[in-house]
Amino acid sequence: MDRIEHRACFGGWQHVYRHHAKSLDCETTFGVYLPPQAEQRSCPVLYWLSGLTCTEQNFITKAGAQRYAAEHGVILVAPDTSPRGAGVADAEGYDLGIGAGFYVDATQAPWSKHYRMFDYVSRELPDLIEAQFPATKARAISGHSMGGHGALVVALKNPGRYRSVSAFSPIVAPTQVPWGQKAFAAYLGEDREAWKAWDATALIASAPERLPLLVDQGEADEFLATQLQPQRLREACEAVGHPLELRMQPGYDHSYYFIASFIGDHIAHHAAALKA
Amino acid sequence: MDRIEHRACFGGWQHVYRHHAKSLDCETTFGVYLPPQAEQRSCPVLYWLSGLTCTEQNFITKAGAQRYAAEHGVILVAPDTSPRGAGVADAEGYDLGIGAGFYVDATQAPWSKHYRMFDYVSRELPDLIEAQFPATKARAISGHSMGGHGALVVALKNPGRYRSVSAFSPIVAPTQVPWGQKAFAAYLGEDREAWKAWDATALIASAPERLPLLVDQGEADEFLATQLQPQRLREACEAVGHPLELRMQPGYDHSYYFIASFIGDHIAHHAAALKA
Repeated sequence: MDRIEHRACFGGWQHVYRHHAKSLDCETTFGVYLPPQAEQRSCPVLYWLSGLTCTEQNFITKAGAQRYAAEHGVILVAPDTSPRGAGVADAEGYDLGIGAGFYVDATQAPWSKHYRMFDYVSRELPDLIEAQFPATKARAISGHSMGGHGALVVALKNPGRYRSVSAFSPIVAPTQVPWGQKAFAAYLGEDREAWKAWDATALIASAPERLPLLVDQGEADEFLATQLQPQRLREACEAVGHPLELRMQPGYDHSYYFIASFIGDHIAHHAAALKA
Repeated sequence: MDRIEHRACFGGWQHVYRHHAKSLDCETTFGVYLPPQAEQRSCPVLYWLSGLTCTEQNFITKAGAQRYAAEHGVILVAPDTSPRGAGVADAEGYDLGIGAGFYVDATQAPWSKHYRMFDYVSRELPDLIEAQFPATKARAISGHSMGGHGALVVALKNPGRYRSVSAFSPIVAPTQVPWGQKAFAAYLGEDREAWKAWDATALIASAPERLPLLVDQGEADEFLATQLQPQRLREACEAVGHPLELRMQPGYDHSYYFIASFIGDHIAHHAAALKA
């Protein structure tokens, strides 16, 4: 594991590491923010999953999350959004292939060789973090857009593994919208029944754990009607009594200005659950 | 004046505008953050001058300053760092020409046609802001690196015009270090006496106004010894009793992680002066 960035930030350290990920069968990078409290004791961890086109850099440079992590004594871990590098399959367009891993384990060639972001973010990366950093096993997960989908699905598919989950502008029903349909057809094949195992609104019905969902969604989000459709999550939660706090935020768009404005609320929410 | 970005942020609005700047004789862009208070009343303004290679985007996306501006009811204005576009002179290297205006009014061809950033940031832009936005004439100024030099020089050369001034990692003595010497030789010519009118440590001696300086400097800054040399500012201030708070910050480098960590202190400092 090579440290490729190391920067003092709000009394702690923003690092970026590169390592060989077994699950992805390639080198990958992740950001890890160690708050000042981590110099004295182990701290709980919030995993952040980014959206289409992002690397670890978007969140660590634009969200302003380190301030709140330092206040609450929470480690922030931000992986990349897909495998990358020579030999990794890619496609035309920003919404399939590199930068667009969708946090699934692909079953279809040529994607299945490297595109195993679910395995990476839910198993290999936490194992690494808990072995190599002053991290407890108290975990929370959040993300934005494709990464909001990822956070919801990773939490729903791993009952007992996360203390809390939240999302910004998530793709709540990837099986029902163009971004998800394009990615799932490629990564998972044409059998739409198999897609449901990776769709938060489909997973809610039979979720063995009713972990409350905190979701922020901008009302001026340019992808609201076509790709995000948060009412589908509301309906799925209401149908089975799954706890959901869906906050529609007037005026806000899909950008990191939106995330920055509310990440403090999310980190406070996660910190309360992580310390409970 | 065309609005090219418009984003809800911390209850206010982060805008980016493009307009024709007379002083620069070209189109230019600037960021303006209007805090929520600006919907009800006019607010004071903090001008931010960025460093080498930057546009208005670096500060508005990476500093996390909007949160504090919203808390204190301060407008943030972030201009570009040089003229740009077809016909604007440029040079090899990141430290001269486009992205490197150094906040001087160039006197030498080919630079003198467009490189008039001092005039732009200290006159034309404030006039525009005060005419077009809900801004009072209470002004503060800050900046980073080349922009820290700019903030100090603009304040020192305009007594009575700013309520407060601060800087992050400023080039305090451009006449004494390679970045400044290269730029001043090009923009101002070979007469080194003329350079002193644009050097904060030289201006301090005869400053007609003893506006206190707040300066943060990272001790792990990769440019500390070669380009920044804050002890020169300390010596210049001590020689004439100019008030200076120079804070050396252990571990911090030259990046926006450093700025983000302390911009809250600076905005609180400016807000107190702007409201006094």
